[in-house]
Amino acid sequence: MKRKYQAKIFVTLRPSVLDPAGVAVQSGLHQLGYDDVEQVRIGKYIELTFISPDESSARQKLDSMCDQMLANPVIENYRFDLIEVESQTGVF
Amino acid sequence: MKRKYQAKIFVTLRPSVLDPAGVAVQSGLHQLGYDDVEQVRIGKYIELTFISPDESSARQKLDSMCDQMLANPVIENYRFDLIEVESQTGVF
Repeated sequence: MKRKYQAKIFVTLRPSVLDPAGVAVQSGLHQLGYDDVEQVRIGKYIELTFISPDESSARQKLDSMCDQMLANPVIENYRFDLIEVESQTGVF
Repeated sequence: MKRKYQAKIFVTLRPSVLDPAGVAVQSGLHQLGYDDVEQVRIGKYIELTFISPDESSARQKLDSMCDQMLANPVIENYRFDLIEVESQTGVF
């Protein structure tokens, strides 16, 4: 049986890593009059649909996709939400 | 009274808009052997801390920040989660 999963992946810079893009956005917001903005950190949000036999192997696959390609483990953290969107006994 | 809020903002391309970066990542994942990946869409994830008197005005302010700067309403959608992280009667 194959199941289709949708993952929502959040890739963020590690807290110790400087975020120049975030600083630029914060300064832009200040210039627009939003003086109360104290911190801005910018990351990536990835939605990904894939097929896997079960949730445990889906999580494992997703972890290795993040480590190998979607995030840079040296400077970034990631976390994800996983939902099953469809399951089917036949062929997709 | 001033309250400090943390917003988690998700900016995604509208479904009708092509996502070349997403297609490139999908193709990269296929080359790494993850053939079961069906769709990849890449967006932005922004964490932002700011001060506001109450939740309703915080939401309003955040909406206008997104419309003016954080998202491009022509091609992108956004949504956000808002949590209060601190409240204080004094001066921050």
